[in-house]
Amino acid sequence: MKIQQMIKQNQLGLLFQQGSFGLEKESQRVYADGSIVTTAHPSLFGNRSYHPYIQTDFAESQLELITPPNKKLGDTYRWLSAIHEVVQRSLPDDEYIFPLSMPAGLPAEQHIQVAQLDNPEDVAYREYLVKVYGKNKQMVSGIHYNFQLSPELISTLFSLQNTYQSAVDFQNDLYLKMAKNFLRYQWVLLYLFAATPTVEENYFSGVSPLKAGEYVRSLRSSRYGYVNDPEIKVSFDSVQQYVDTLEHWVANGKLIAEKEFYSNVRLRGAKKARELLQNGIQYLEFRLFDLNPFEAYGISLADAKFIHLFALLMIWLEDTADQEAVELGKARLAEVAFEHPLDKTAYAEEGELLLLEMLAMLEQIGAPSELNSIVKEKLSQFADPTQTIGGRLFYAIEQAGGYQQLGAQLAQQYKAQAFERFYALSAFDNMELSTQALLFDLIQKGIQTEILDEHDQFLCLKHGEHIEYVKNGNMTSHDSYISPLIMENKVVTKKVLQKAGFNVPQSREFTSVEQAVANYALFEHRAVVIKPKSTNYGLGITIFQQGVQNREDFTKAVEIAFREDKEIMVEDYLVGTEYRFFVLGNETLAVLLRVPANVIGDGEHTVAELVAMKNEHPLRGDGSRTPLKKIALGEIEQLQLKEQGLTIDAIPMEGQRVQLRANSNISTGGDSIDMTDQMHDSYKQIAVGITQAMGAAVCGVDLIIPDLNQPAQQNLSSWGVIEANFNPMMMMHIFPYAGKSRRLTQQVIKMLFPELQ
Amino acid sequence: MKIQQMIKQNQLGLLFQQGSFGLEKESQRVYADGSIVTTAHPSLFGNRSYHPYIQTDFAESQLELITPPNKKLGDTYRWLSAIHEVVQRSLPDDEYIFPLSMPAGLPAEQHIQVAQLDNPEDVAYREYLVKVYGKNKQMVSGIHYNFQLSPELISTLFSLQNTYQSAVDFQNDLYLKMAKNFLRYQWVLLYLFAATPTVEENYFSGVSPLKAGEYVRSLRSSRYGYVNDPEIKVSFDSVQQYVDTLEHWVANGKLIAEKEFYSNVRLRGAKKARELLQNGIQYLEFRLFDLNPFEAYGISLADAKFIHLFALLMIWLEDTADQEAVELGKARLAEVAFEHPLDKTAYAEEGELLLLEMLAMLEQIGAPSELNSIVKEKLSQFADPTQTIGGRLFYAIEQAGGYQQLGAQLAQQYKAQAFERFYALSAFDNMELSTQALLFDLIQKGIQTEILDEHDQFLCLKHGEHIEYVKNGNMTSHDSYISPLIMENKVVTKKVLQKAGFNVPQSREFTSVEQAVANYALFEHRAVVIKPKSTNYGLGITIFQQGVQNREDFTKAVEIAFREDKEIMVEDYLVGTEYRFFVLGNETLAVLLRVPANVIGDGEHTVAELVAMKNEHPLRGDGSRTPLKKIALGEIEQLQLKEQGLTIDAIPMEGQRVQLRANSNISTGGDSIDMTDQMHDSYKQIAVGITQAMGAAVCGVDLIIPDLNQPAQQNLSSWGVIEANFNPMMMMHIFPYAGKSRRLTQQVIKMLFPELQ
Repeated sequence: MKIQQMIKQNQLGLLFQQGSFGLEKESQRVYADGSIVTTAHPSLFGNRSYHPYIQTDFAESQLELITPPNKKLGDTYRWLSAIHEVVQRSLPDDEYIFPLSMPAGLPAEQHIQVAQLDNPEDVAYREYLVKVYGKNKQMVSGIHYNFQLSPELISTLFSLQNTYQSAVDFQNDLYLKMAKNFLRYQWVLLYLFAATPTVEENYFSGVSPLKAGEYVRSLRSSRYGYVNDPEIKVSFDSVQQYVDTLEHWVANGKLIAEKEFYSNVRLRGAKKARELLQNGIQYLEFRLFDLNPFEAYGISLADAKFIHLFALLMIWLEDTADQEAVELGKARLAEVAFEHPLDKTAYAEEGELLLLEMLAMLEQIGAPSELNSIVKEKLSQFADPTQTIGGRLFYAIEQAGGYQQLGAQLAQQYKAQAFERFYALSAFDNMELSTQALLFDLIQKGIQTEILDEHDQFLCLKHGEHIEYVKNGNMTSHDSYISPLIMENKVVTKKVLQKAGFNVPQSREFTSVEQAVANYALFEHRAVVIKPKSTNYGLGITIFQQGVQNREDFTKAVEIAFREDKEIMVEDYLVGTEYRFFVLGNETLAVLLRVPANVIGDGEHTVAELVAMKNEHPLRGDGSRTPLKKIALGEIEQLQLKEQGLTIDAIPMEGQRVQLRANSNISTGGDSIDMTDQMHDSYKQIAVGITQAMGAAVCGVDLIIPDLNQPAQQNLSSWGVIEANFNPMMMMHIFPYAGKSRRLTQQVIKMLFPELQ
Repeated sequence: MKIQQMIKQNQLGLLFQQGSFGLEKESQRVYADGSIVTTAHPSLFGNRSYHPYIQTDFAESQLELITPPNKKLGDTYRWLSAIHEVVQRSLPDDEYIFPLSMPAGLPAEQHIQVAQLDNPEDVAYREYLVKVYGKNKQMVSGIHYNFQLSPELISTLFSLQNTYQSAVDFQNDLYLKMAKNFLRYQWVLLYLFAATPTVEENYFSGVSPLKAGEYVRSLRSSRYGYVNDPEIKVSFDSVQQYVDTLEHWVANGKLIAEKEFYSNVRLRGAKKARELLQNGIQYLEFRLFDLNPFEAYGISLADAKFIHLFALLMIWLEDTADQEAVELGKARLAEVAFEHPLDKTAYAEEGELLLLEMLAMLEQIGAPSELNSIVKEKLSQFADPTQTIGGRLFYAIEQAGGYQQLGAQLAQQYKAQAFERFYALSAFDNMELSTQALLFDLIQKGIQTEILDEHDQFLCLKHGEHIEYVKNGNMTSHDSYISPLIMENKVVTKKVLQKAGFNVPQSREFTSVEQAVANYALFEHRAVVIKPKSTNYGLGITIFQQGVQNREDFTKAVEIAFREDKEIMVEDYLVGTEYRFFVLGNETLAVLLRVPANVIGDGEHTVAELVAMKNEHPLRGDGSRTPLKKIALGEIEQLQLKEQGLTIDAIPMEGQRVQLRANSNISTGGDSIDMTDQMHDSYKQIAVGITQAMGAAVCGVDLIIPDLNQPAQQNLSSWGVIEANFNPMMMMHIFPYAGKSRRLTQQVIKMLFPELQ
């Protein structure tokens, strides 16, 4: 297969670099000291019978984190990051993710519990493995790397050659070339990435093969790792032979199932190997990689890119390894695995030549220079083994005082990092916080999620055959189209709510003093606010909180308003406090009070200092990448201070409440205070009713209520509705400044997928 | 009741002028000669058991058109107009609406069929009336005018007085004052509006009381009209006495039911008079008015305004008529009714004084000057009876050669007028045509409709307890909110449709020639169009209709595109014709072909002349107030002509197709051609599938299809979807330039109200 020539001649370089990537990463849950937990897989992670992202591998303690496949490796890495953040934040307080492949602090064998999966066959398989390999070996973790070439590349290459008649045969041989060459040269990756130099002594059933203080490159890839009996040889010469030999070992009972074949390359695309004959190989799974303890997610993006290039090189090479070469490759792997991590490898020359060929390939396919740097750096590690992951790990273990100590230290460090911006999902930080929160819950509960348009916050969710689309965190198929149209139109909203019998404040507009006064009778004894139609800093506003008492006062207020505008409004004035009700379906899930930006004096600090202190709150930031916004000290705030006889340098008394804004918006530094439990139930019912009158599934209802303890009554002095919002903010409820957090995004998922318990 | 003083002192003038108005208008369906039809009530008008707008009165031939109540008289009048247009356009071709109150061309009594209502009691009541009054009297038609004072006025007046303790008593006496004074002075309205000077001879059971050639003011208000036995007197002194006396006449069998009491004023607000005692009078019904034959809708808006002022005057007056005065009023009515229409009335002085008082009232309440003019014009008619409606009618009958002839003439004229802009609903012409079409169907079928926001095309529909909202004619609760959000985002739309397995053309963007060419392999042998991202007059576009054949051609096309923009697109090119599929629910209701603006030569006329002739088409106009747009002859059209070697002065050959636009938009003069019946069903099913994949109830799907006769196949050369629209235009389907009309608005109603058959 002259792939290299075809790509060069037909300028297929860009297409050659395209593909699809998926990562699977195993790791042990451990306690703070690095010892493996004996607790069950956290129930927060939903059901393992379908969870696409968070599974268990062999043991109940052994997490398996799985990214969806992506066309960009960077996206796959974002998913790996996101799944990690979800897991880290969902673990019990005293549990951590162990960052090394070989276990430390193993419990006694009888306390290692195999994964308690629903399917009895899955459990039985694990029990069988225990018998054959012992439990300890099964506790080893690693990273599996799935790679698919661009189908367009394959069909283009196929159309450019004339050796093969069958497209499936061509595709199979292409992947087999990659697989065989990979097995031939895999030791290179082992040399660069190996990170299992040692393990605790009681890992071995008998006496440790390692002398005290002896280190190797990779125990995991040695015969002490999780490998098959060396007698088990499977041919990669053709798919037919692969299937035949694999089935042979299963038939004679040396393997209990095909999946017990632990090759560092697996041919993928079918449940049963035999199906590959028909479907063809769809992608390869590379299973060689130890966890990189220096990376929070077990692998760096640069290394993932290098592995991609390595896989490409395997088909770029002129030759295809035959069975003999494959066995040579395996032998070298075993040899290199047992080298000391600080020793130069015996095969450095072959490794360097291979990477030089890789550099030449990059040149030919027009790869970005960044990849060139990555490869050059790896190349240099053949001369300097201390720069390999294994080399660095050697020193790190010495420094930490032991293998388990290092693992424990790093485990704690990575967990702390995952909590730094606990309200965000770092990998998707360019999306809105509410969509990040939803993504968090989707990953946690195991709903298959595809981001259709990142900029537009558009997700496609899937569970079984059930598909739902979500935009902006809570805009879904459950809302009827007419609802947002109603809510967008204030006039229509008022009419609809009024028809449905809710307390809606009335307002009338007037274009002359005479006209307004002619309607005086309408407002007598009524609490109203008179204001210019376009208000400016509250100028021209008069509030008759106790009701209009006489025509003279009314006329005066009208005249004052007309000084500011050609049109004025006389509106029902609602006495009370504004609360935001977040309604989903038949329930008010959260009630929030928004308080204008403020600080409370302590008799010691200046206003400016108090603001700075309050702004230290972890939820406060720019207000878009954080749930709350820092309080500013601009013109408006200083004007507000002035009205209270204060400046930013004043020192308010202890307990003195200093207001920095008139408006209560969170976006101007306001506080969000959860009041869900305090609010009388009757108002919650009203908010639900308003939502239903709008035909909405999700709605943010703003009610003015004078006394949240009194049951609601059918008049404007008990309560009034001032607005209904069809895409209500969720973050202020999920992460309030004070009061209980209401995880609304979980309720959105429940609404969309009621079949999930 | 010193209403006048209270209004003056408290400046309640504006409030006094507010109220609520409803009109009911009876009229006979007639043939072209003015003779009454013997056909059944048209089934197009749906079910009379609930129809709020179109009912039958006594006879099956007697339409009763009912407006909903409105706060503005102008709106009530618009409804009256709209209902008329609907009825006129829905009548069989040979039927008309008779514009006069007294019937002409009466069938023999046995051929007059009483209204065939569902409720047997309703039919029995009519049979009873036949016995008591005979059929002919029941065939008389008129207008009933419902008027409610502003409830805020009443409660304000109540709070300003201290005679009454009970608000209901106060309200009742206010309306009773209006009723009694109305009965006292009703002759004034009769004098001005009377329009039943004669009737055909066989109307009378015996000998006609009118000598040959004798005319009176109002036969209808005389004892030959539809009036009770003079012995039946009902007291308006109080609600209690009203109820007692009315029940008395029913109890002793002189009236079969309360509704047989044909007073020119009815107290309204309860099914049974007795209920008024508790609820109070809610409004009054004035039943005095003959149809004005000079108005297409039986009454002019100015006259309706005058009647409103007259009703107000009745409570403005210092005195309240007592029972004696009421009887005096009735007597005068009878007297004036029998005066000759050209004679000065005997009570001209009283009439003039009353209208002078009305003018004084207008001054006091600050009424707009327009009302002043209306009253002054009426005032002048006391000196000049020829200007009254009756006076004008006298001359018109003479001129037409008879009563029936005049009626027939006007009936035909009004029907023709109703068809002038048959695609519109004149009264709601400020709304979109599609909403006008929907309103037409709603009125026809009898769905209670409220216009929530005219500017925003927002309707509230109601049938029984079932409420639906509609915006822009087809945006409803049946669409899920996520559907328009998907359709708004082209990237998401493509992904969703692709996932669902539909043929979606692919497109890729490139920012350099090198990058594009590096991807050449993707496009080889594929039909694509290469174009700058922002296209300008089609510059820089290359189409490879037969597929890209070689790298050189491709590179050249890419370079040409890059001359016009910094970014280019390579898109799948779909060979074929674009069709618009209008899908509602599970069905493609219409398929439309849009053809670019064009004319067909006749070997005689110039292009400019051909365009002018084509623009005469009744559907063509400005394109917003008409379904189609006139073809322009601007720069773009002339450029298009030039490309065909033509100018606007060229004379194309007979049958020569001259294209005036490259694009097929209706908004640039294109033709709309219905292809629903021609289109192969498989494509209609695909359009339905696309709609469902979007979760939409209503969707406009644009497909490119090379051959509409061939069944659809699963590849882009058979068909491709290029767009899905969530608020698809309906007018082009309802009123296509050629082909069958598809009344989509009716289907929207069926979707919203499946309970209607």
